[in-house]
Amino acid sequence: MKKFINNNDDFLKESLTGFGKAHSDIINVNLDPSFVSRKNKTKDGKVSLISGGGSGHEPMHGGFVGHGMLDAACPGFVFSAPTPDQMQAAAEHVDSGAGVLFIVKNYSGDIMNFQMGAEMYSGKNDSIVTNDDVAVEDSTFTTGRRGVAATVLVEKIVGSLAENGGSLEECKKLGEKVNKNAGTMGVAFTSCTVPAAGKPTFDIGDDEMEFGVGIHGEPGRKREKVQASKTIVGNILEAILDNLKPEKNEKNLLFVNGMGGTPLTELYLVYEDACQILQSKGVQVTKSLVGNYCTSLEMQGASITLLKCDDEILKHWDSPVHTAAMRWGM
Amino acid sequence: MKKFINNNDDFLKESLTGFGKAHSDIINVNLDPSFVSRKNKTKDGKVSLISGGGSGHEPMHGGFVGHGMLDAACPGFVFSAPTPDQMQAAAEHVDSGAGVLFIVKNYSGDIMNFQMGAEMYSGKNDSIVTNDDVAVEDSTFTTGRRGVAATVLVEKIVGSLAENGGSLEECKKLGEKVNKNAGTMGVAFTSCTVPAAGKPTFDIGDDEMEFGVGIHGEPGRKREKVQASKTIVGNILEAILDNLKPEKNEKNLLFVNGMGGTPLTELYLVYEDACQILQSKGVQVTKSLVGNYCTSLEMQGASITLLKCDDEILKHWDSPVHTAAMRWGM
Repeated sequence: MKKFINNNDDFLKESLTGFGKAHSDIINVNLDPSFVSRKNKTKDGKVSLISGGGSGHEPMHGGFVGHGMLDAACPGFVFSAPTPDQMQAAAEHVDSGAGVLFIVKNYSGDIMNFQMGAEMYSGKNDSIVTNDDVAVEDSTFTTGRRGVAATVLVEKIVGSLAENGGSLEECKKLGEKVNKNAGTMGVAFTSCTVPAAGKPTFDIGDDEMEFGVGIHGEPGRKREKVQASKTIVGNILEAILDNLKPEKNEKNLLFVNGMGGTPLTELYLVYEDACQILQSKGVQVTKSLVGNYCTSLEMQGASITLLKCDDEILKHWDSPVHTAAMRWGM
Repeated sequence: MKKFINNNDDFLKESLTGFGKAHSDIINVNLDPSFVSRKNKTKDGKVSLISGGGSGHEPMHGGFVGHGMLDAACPGFVFSAPTPDQMQAAAEHVDSGAGVLFIVKNYSGDIMNFQMGAEMYSGKNDSIVTNDDVAVEDSTFTTGRRGVAATVLVEKIVGSLAENGGSLEECKKLGEKVNKNAGTMGVAFTSCTVPAAGKPTFDIGDDEMEFGVGIHGEPGRKREKVQASKTIVGNILEAILDNLKPEKNEKNLLFVNGMGGTPLTELYLVYEDACQILQSKGVQVTKSLVGNYCTSLEMQGASITLLKCDDEILKHWDSPVHTAAMRWGM
């Protein structure tokens, strides 16, 4: 294992401390229990959004704390759910009286610990669970579909509604709509290496890819030979479109997400392939996002997310955001 | 070789086309000859900044075209200098009458082709050459020091001056000051693979790193065993500080740049180590930048850049910028 690391016990603490220093204009980092919160206190009457999950998917979620997106993020150890006391402490720190909405990716550990954190928190709160990965039902760490890259879109879009006065109920409803309107599938060329494990999560041949991989390296639909980008992208889109069935006149957001170790040139090539294939099927691409947002450490690979957008979703996608990893309009 | 690619001949064209579509609100992509330019024509009287170089370092340079930074970027094939007709065409396209400043990284091919492009262009123009890499004098592709990550800082800071009415002479002078005030050194854990070559640029052992590596995988100062992050960072900073000799009361920008394949958690850990070491030496860190900005395809590794800042540099660093890869204040 070759990583920038001093010792495994301090890995997360040191990284979070650096993250806090590098973005001290936007966020604060609390270390015990660990959570990232906005530097400026959430304004009175604004619903607070809190997400979190295992580390190793950066910039998700700490990179999305700030105006127009999350109020706090709770990072667990690499690929391990955060503990309930983190969610409790984050909620107590950020809630301005309008309640807390927890945004949770569908993994058994996260579901359990967020639920416990919510029970330990005495204020008004509710949760939404993302499960946008169309690759497989049930997987190594979860029952049902996995929550993956569309979580980024949920956080941006619901973050805007919360910033603009949406109630807890309205925020939950919009989050569930975005999750339902989104489908994602990924492919991996290489494994990642969890620092505490010290060796790759899975073995893969020099000419193989894992089609439908999870963001922790969970198995997908099949292991197969690497194919031309257009073939890979076509197969991913087929699975997503089968699932989402967008109407011809519907507007869509196309999100090409890097798993961490794939160069931007390749992600833009995937984006181009996806645009061509979608156009040939009469699927409109109105908005786009390309880059490393929901990663799996240094894994080489990418996922594609399609999100069907109505006017409410489009408005909240475009609204200003100011976080470490996503910023526009301010 | 496992990459998202259809065929090697179309790799760059397809990637650039996708890049143009994903950021059609900011930029246009011209394919023959290839250059990326701002969507909105450069305003009359504004000096135009044009950079470029081999592809494979994305988001540099195309990701830095837009308000407050570059007017155009000329991408060569992966790790190959762009051809003179690209620079000529880009200059003819963007020059609003106030002249063109070419920003060139110090590699023999880039120097030669930018010089030829400048001669072919009939309008007023001048050039600055970046050479911030303190690792080695002379290298595989260059005479003198290599131009690496500080080029990003030059483009941001001079871009602001040009946006705010600086003359060609003033822009050149500021660019040379930023380059002189900056020092960079990098380390690689893995090699990158150039698509046309189809195999890693260099071999490296499972426990080895290349200390002082270039952004094309050129040899650095030495090949050695991987050490703790704090040791690596300390050795890099020693080389930079020996070179820059910042004064105790001077303000500095600390830039931790990923080579492409290293997770953000590790880059923030490197940032934290660097902050601690610099603080212990009485070196002030006032501004920061952490992320993948000047990459080497999927290479695992990072570079550290220190930039000594006076008030002029600080003002132009903070000013608004709106490009695909760097955006704030608008």
